[in-house]
Amino acid sequence: MTTTTPLTGELIIAGSTVPGTGTTVHGIDPSTGADLEPAYRHGTMADVEAACAAADEAFDAYRSTTSAARADFLDAIAENIGALGETLIERAVAESGLPVGRITGEVGRTSGQLRLFASVLREGSWNGARIDPAQPDRAPLPRADIRQRKVSLGPVVVFGASNFPLAFSVGGGDTASALAAGCPVIVKAHDAHPGTSEYVGRAITEAAASTGMPAGVFSLVYGDGRTIGTALVTDPRVKAVGFTGSRSGGTALVRAAADRPEPIPVYAEMSSINPVFLFPHALETRAADLGRAFVASLTLGSGQFCTNPGLVIAQDGPGLDAFVAAAADAVATSTPTTMLTPNIADSYAQGVDALSTAADEVARGTVTDAPNAGRAALFSTDAATFLDRDVLQAEVFGASALVVRCTSAEQVAAVARALEGQLTATIHADAADHADAGRLLRVLELKAGRILFDGWPTGVEVGHAMVHGGPYPATSDSRSTSVGSLAIERFLRPVAYQDVPTALLPSAIADGNPDGIWRRVDGQLSRD
Amino acid sequence: MTTTTPLTGELIIAGSTVPGTGTTVHGIDPSTGADLEPAYRHGTMADVEAACAAADEAFDAYRSTTSAARADFLDAIAENIGALGETLIERAVAESGLPVGRITGEVGRTSGQLRLFASVLREGSWNGARIDPAQPDRAPLPRADIRQRKVSLGPVVVFGASNFPLAFSVGGGDTASALAAGCPVIVKAHDAHPGTSEYVGRAITEAAASTGMPAGVFSLVYGDGRTIGTALVTDPRVKAVGFTGSRSGGTALVRAAADRPEPIPVYAEMSSINPVFLFPHALETRAADLGRAFVASLTLGSGQFCTNPGLVIAQDGPGLDAFVAAAADAVATSTPTTMLTPNIADSYAQGVDALSTAADEVARGTVTDAPNAGRAALFSTDAATFLDRDVLQAEVFGASALVVRCTSAEQVAAVARALEGQLTATIHADAADHADAGRLLRVLELKAGRILFDGWPTGVEVGHAMVHGGPYPATSDSRSTSVGSLAIERFLRPVAYQDVPTALLPSAIADGNPDGIWRRVDGQLSRD
Repeated sequence: MTTTTPLTGELIIAGSTVPGTGTTVHGIDPSTGADLEPAYRHGTMADVEAACAAADEAFDAYRSTTSAARADFLDAIAENIGALGETLIERAVAESGLPVGRITGEVGRTSGQLRLFASVLREGSWNGARIDPAQPDRAPLPRADIRQRKVSLGPVVVFGASNFPLAFSVGGGDTASALAAGCPVIVKAHDAHPGTSEYVGRAITEAAASTGMPAGVFSLVYGDGRTIGTALVTDPRVKAVGFTGSRSGGTALVRAAADRPEPIPVYAEMSSINPVFLFPHALETRAADLGRAFVASLTLGSGQFCTNPGLVIAQDGPGLDAFVAAAADAVATSTPTTMLTPNIADSYAQGVDALSTAADEVARGTVTDAPNAGRAALFSTDAATFLDRDVLQAEVFGASALVVRCTSAEQVAAVARALEGQLTATIHADAADHADAGRLLRVLELKAGRILFDGWPTGVEVGHAMVHGGPYPATSDSRSTSVGSLAIERFLRPVAYQDVPTALLPSAIADGNPDGIWRRVDGQLSRD
Repeated sequence: MTTTTPLTGELIIAGSTVPGTGTTVHGIDPSTGADLEPAYRHGTMADVEAACAAADEAFDAYRSTTSAARADFLDAIAENIGALGETLIERAVAESGLPVGRITGEVGRTSGQLRLFASVLREGSWNGARIDPAQPDRAPLPRADIRQRKVSLGPVVVFGASNFPLAFSVGGGDTASALAAGCPVIVKAHDAHPGTSEYVGRAITEAAASTGMPAGVFSLVYGDGRTIGTALVTDPRVKAVGFTGSRSGGTALVRAAADRPEPIPVYAEMSSINPVFLFPHALETRAADLGRAFVASLTLGSGQFCTNPGLVIAQDGPGLDAFVAAAADAVATSTPTTMLTPNIADSYAQGVDALSTAADEVARGTVTDAPNAGRAALFSTDAATFLDRDVLQAEVFGASALVVRCTSAEQVAAVARALEGQLTATIHADAADHADAGRLLRVLELKAGRILFDGWPTGVEVGHAMVHGGPYPATSDSRSTSVGSLAIERFLRPVAYQDVPTALLPSAIADGNPDGIWRRVDGQLSRD
């Protein structure tokens, strides 16, 4: 199996390709509607069984590898993905309809994520090492030697997302963070980009082989979410799930995981309309610029971002009028762009129709005959109507947004308080707005995983401080993030070691700090 | 309301006493079966509503207090509990049947937990502060300034446990860690110790008043778990739950929380039989001593500990025979001690009966006519039988244990692998056993929250490195601990702040590190 050899259309289970025997699917070029070769066939329950058995078997050897060895594995994956070069980019462009520049950037982002987690492994704080030394002379009772570190949860199932065929898919952030945590990964590929999935699956498989990882550390299964996906989530050997997709899909997996004899955590990133708040002085000084910049963010990638700004909230007045006028102009002159899949294009059209019955249409993008193209859409309503109709808070995946006109700052705050959980919340404010914006910030802290000022929520930086998460229904677990180095914590749990003989202690909590990592000794951070 | 004034039998809602109007209950002295005065009446749905509304209203002010202010609040609670002195101890002894020495120790433990979380607040790492500074010149795109800290989840409901009327009840670890995290707390008192609950509830209420905390930061509600408890867990203003109790009770709350329109985390510590593994050389050199020490741990506090050692696993042979003989002797001469409540004594008797039909009885404690006394019980079986019968893994809350005789080290490992999730796992091993023990340690890391060598699992040290948690069904969330400073993380979630104006940044992530805390800057820990 060489990386850039032609695609086979087969599953990858524990280092070996396996022909599927289920439903046949093709990647589709959404810009033409044409099928892409080769055909892919879904896996069966036997493939689920084989992948889970291999992951379970590999788990102990894999979690026993050193941080440095796993870091090398992640770096090798990044290198292999980079080495796929134009082959990978061309396929991902064909399958997604996304532009070459965007896919090229996404390849870099994907490799960057893998390298970030390699650096997290080498730094070592992920171990959560804590040592409370023995106090043999303490009265009335001596204190035992107690140490703590984090261990891997076990095999993780990752569901690839449609909208980031690389960064949130087979080798994306969920896979990178789970592999970093010492957990074998089984990916359920998204049918929207089977070829991209196969290429990346090979890159991971080859990296596992070249760095001496057990073959079962990674498998790639094609299949339907309701059958194959549910079978993976309910397999007793699987211990956690990462998912990026729809609210209905995410809640179904959460439910399936909770109904297991042994419930397991599901990290589902599901639904967000990413409210944008425009403050009066900002509108006064730059309403038209804001309107144009807003539409640029709204229509980026046909609006197919989890962080797409789908809701604008501001006080009524000439500033908001100017913003809406500029935004309407930009929407009306926007050229529809190809959406990811025919299904997504259909759902978008339906979502826009639903909005148009509940809110006032302000502008639509130009008409086109191109297949699967998404026409941008801008609606407006007043705050009372927004607060009254739940449908106006439903995510419409694509370049559609709703402006909510408020009569007062209090009404802006009331709308903010009524929002469901969000991935992001954005504030545009000038210095003269900051006192009011500070009060709103306090409300938004409880509503969103990320709050940003004077920018746009699309574009999620990969780093140590990023949070790509948020209260339900933005995600199923607000205590986590799926982007950034904190994401590794989703796949770890703490274990305490009491009076364990020195020779048997894991190196992270061994005497003399052989790993040279930061540890909390009697509550104080130390690298001694 | 003065702390040691006579008990009123009333609920405490947001700083005010409120007479209950529901079912009447009394504390019961289990050593006599006699009712204790005063009568307590359960709350109603109106009380649930009032407590939740008050917690919700208090939340924003409370979470906005400084770490130092909350630390002072926790210290004041600890001081007030200490000031209750003999009044509190006498009441807790009367309601629980536990000895004065044990209750005195538990008061100290409870105050110690509160002071530990005060120290955690003052140290500041709980903020999880991370800063990725802006890189305005980065190509192709500049990097924004991104900072991360943790925020409070919201009001927390805590269910008091029967077996630790202080340390795992109204002012116990769940309450201490939730209050530390900036979350208002509503306690559903356990009917087994209503008077102790009232005293501690007053101590918290008075501390809130004396340190200037909003009154709604704490409420104490008496009521039935299925009605009042469920109403609290399903109230939309409640954002997390802490529970210590039975598997059936815990799973019911987990289910109720998962079925909410907005699901919330439930930290339920439920069920554990705390396996003890005896290695051949340890048995060879000290079998009888181990047998006696085991029974001392088994019968401590009538065996009413979550970490009570209910399962012993070892290879058959003269060493195990000697262990069992010594243990049988110690059990047979043990005096039954009063259990916490008539219900618990009944359940214990039923659990022992169920074990006696599925395993071989080795010894029972002496017979007594004293009411609600628990007779210790020791059973044995072979590994094949154990592996075949799920009932042998069911927790029997009280001083009952089962010895599993194995024919080989492989069978010991097979039994270990077949275990459900546990709070603790214990190994007794001599130096010559350590190679084998090290292999078992690897298995047990995936089964338990705490692994200890050459000791007994009862006695859970409160510190930074402790884990009192474990895989399901030991707890509902293996990623957490309910004892030790890590417990605060259960009630926090991360938020990212992107390009937030300097003046609006929370102090934990402000420029210049005004709080003087450890922060992760571009991934590196720093106190600058």
